[in-house]
Amino acid sequence: MSSFSWQAEATDGAARAGQLHTAHGSVPTPTFMPVGTAGTVKAMTADAVRSTGAGIVLGNTYHLMLRPGAERVRALGGLHRFMDWPGPILTDSGGFQVMSLGALRRLDADGVTFRSHIDGSEHRLTPERSTDIQHALDATITMCFDECPALPAPVEAIAASMRLSMRWAARSREAFVQREGYAQFGIVQGGTELELRAESVRALTEIGFEGYAVGGLAVGEGQALMFRTLDGTVPLLPHDKPRYLMGVGTPDDLLGGVQRGIDMFDCVMPTRAGRTARAYTGFGTLNLRNARHATDARPIEAGCPCPACSRHSRAYLHHLFRADEILGPMLLTWHNLTYYQRLMTGIRQAVLEGRLDAHAVALRAGWAQGDPPPLQTP
Amino acid sequence: MSSFSWQAEATDGAARAGQLHTAHGSVPTPTFMPVGTAGTVKAMTADAVRSTGAGIVLGNTYHLMLRPGAERVRALGGLHRFMDWPGPILTDSGGFQVMSLGALRRLDADGVTFRSHIDGSEHRLTPERSTDIQHALDATITMCFDECPALPAPVEAIAASMRLSMRWAARSREAFVQREGYAQFGIVQGGTELELRAESVRALTEIGFEGYAVGGLAVGEGQALMFRTLDGTVPLLPHDKPRYLMGVGTPDDLLGGVQRGIDMFDCVMPTRAGRTARAYTGFGTLNLRNARHATDARPIEAGCPCPACSRHSRAYLHHLFRADEILGPMLLTWHNLTYYQRLMTGIRQAVLEGRLDAHAVALRAGWAQGDPPPLQTP
Repeated sequence: MSSFSWQAEATDGAARAGQLHTAHGSVPTPTFMPVGTAGTVKAMTADAVRSTGAGIVLGNTYHLMLRPGAERVRALGGLHRFMDWPGPILTDSGGFQVMSLGALRRLDADGVTFRSHIDGSEHRLTPERSTDIQHALDATITMCFDECPALPAPVEAIAASMRLSMRWAARSREAFVQREGYAQFGIVQGGTELELRAESVRALTEIGFEGYAVGGLAVGEGQALMFRTLDGTVPLLPHDKPRYLMGVGTPDDLLGGVQRGIDMFDCVMPTRAGRTARAYTGFGTLNLRNARHATDARPIEAGCPCPACSRHSRAYLHHLFRADEILGPMLLTWHNLTYYQRLMTGIRQAVLEGRLDAHAVALRAGWAQGDPPPLQTP
Repeated sequence: MSSFSWQAEATDGAARAGQLHTAHGSVPTPTFMPVGTAGTVKAMTADAVRSTGAGIVLGNTYHLMLRPGAERVRALGGLHRFMDWPGPILTDSGGFQVMSLGALRRLDADGVTFRSHIDGSEHRLTPERSTDIQHALDATITMCFDECPALPAPVEAIAASMRLSMRWAARSREAFVQREGYAQFGIVQGGTELELRAESVRALTEIGFEGYAVGGLAVGEGQALMFRTLDGTVPLLPHDKPRYLMGVGTPDDLLGGVQRGIDMFDCVMPTRAGRTARAYTGFGTLNLRNARHATDARPIEAGCPCPACSRHSRAYLHHLFRADEILGPMLLTWHNLTYYQRLMTGIRQAVLEGRLDAHAVALRAGWAQGDPPPLQTP
């Protein structure tokens, strides 16, 4: 029934280039999804997000259910119309945010009761309710409601949590309403324990989803353990379905993820960094508040087509951040998302041309190189 | 030597439609200049400002001299390049801001010594220094350095202040470096005392400027007194030079100003209101934080081409402001500046077609009408 699909175009080692086809259009993969937590990619108009090359964005069930409320978004025509993003939208399940509430939440076998961080009001999420909310939002891709323990944790705790998440995955699937071009992704859990990861993959593939996410990583375990876990997990996933590494990451994390067979990523890093004066570039990161940028007439990154780079100097960006002008976060978020999209486009092209390893060496050399010294301007 | 000029296209009563020709392009008048205090129209990219129809923007000498510094802006290619605004820029003289510092400033016959609101460092502005700074910034239109007393004030104080400003105007003129297509405007002072205003006009026209501003209004005297002062002042100004009413104002103030012969306006109202959820429309103002907008699927103003109106509902804007999302101020500033530009375009068209009085009646009826009741959405 579903016309949702992922089609391979090329592989290079474990890496894949493909096309994700959805009810809301197609997206070349590997792809990075900017995070639009509360119905907006922070400090960006939807047109600006499109101009970076982004094809799919993420929305947060936890934030949207509390404000403005899922039923209100539905009444207003769904999240696509609400935020002016007719393209595909993936929503998380709310699980990760709710688990992060600590003392404000109470977990039971059926779901989670929690208090809103906004007004203290009590709410409840279950696999069914999370799935219903994502339906009300009109998410193109719905995520299963799961529990995600912080790492490190005792193996028994990780196993129990993963098995709870698998029971919840079955209930999420039961609650999901199939619609042409829409999808639901299962989430592999199990911490860094490869046997638990394998058990989780078996449970999810037995249920059957349109795509599979790797969750519970980038929560403190470090890049080496994350990559090792991907090495032991991704090969077990169906080869004809899209694979999504949740909440990841740095440019180097994305590269390593693609090299291990991941197709989709999301992370707040480029947008959050954009609001705190941190620029991502091909030669590493820059802090534009640093005094050495105050007189630098160069763009953040030569050749970058974003308006921060094509229209302005580093000195201007430095000035905007020093003066607490809203335009600073606006322009730097624009740049960072543009960098992330260009990164993914370059990686995808390398996969298509069978030269990902060489491309990876060049990318890592660039990041390690650092910023060339500034020009002499007064 | 100067190719700076203002050419009349039509008059309608005291109102004028014309073209301002400058080294940085031409601007149809009457025109509203968005305020770009610190080298940015707050919450707007330069492209966004252009898209509203704005033809000339204002920069603040006081803010720019303190941060990033006039010499730095000069070294970086001038304010046009710094802020990506190749069109005309008018800079104020810094006088108004410095006078507002109260205990932080000390006035003498030669100028003003003051402490920076940013770091407390001591600075000095004189007519010569203000003019030099505006030159360093590469302002298309330089304003004379003047003193502007708060109203009401004793007549003697207003007279003494005006005469000081006239001496400073002569010194500002002396310091101004004539350049093809650049201009310097004198500023008429004298509070609401028409005889003092007339004396000020005589002093300025004797010196001779490329344009004339009416200063010292909209500082607490009320609209009726402001209009009465314009009625007694504007007819005395040269008919072949542009006239600029400084720091004004509401849509109704702009309309009344044009009806009294003013060609140029600037005000922080549309941008400041945009950051505090207040929308300007043809049917008055709206506060988008108000709960009645929470479920309203209508745009702020039907037919408005700005992205807030053409892409989004009032409910979305309401949500953005409630969630403290940067996109709220971004979109609403965009709308308000678009409204102000459309207002001026409509007024200009009415002058060109000799129907300004009827247009004014229709505009005022619209503002008085208020917002039609919202649709019924859940």
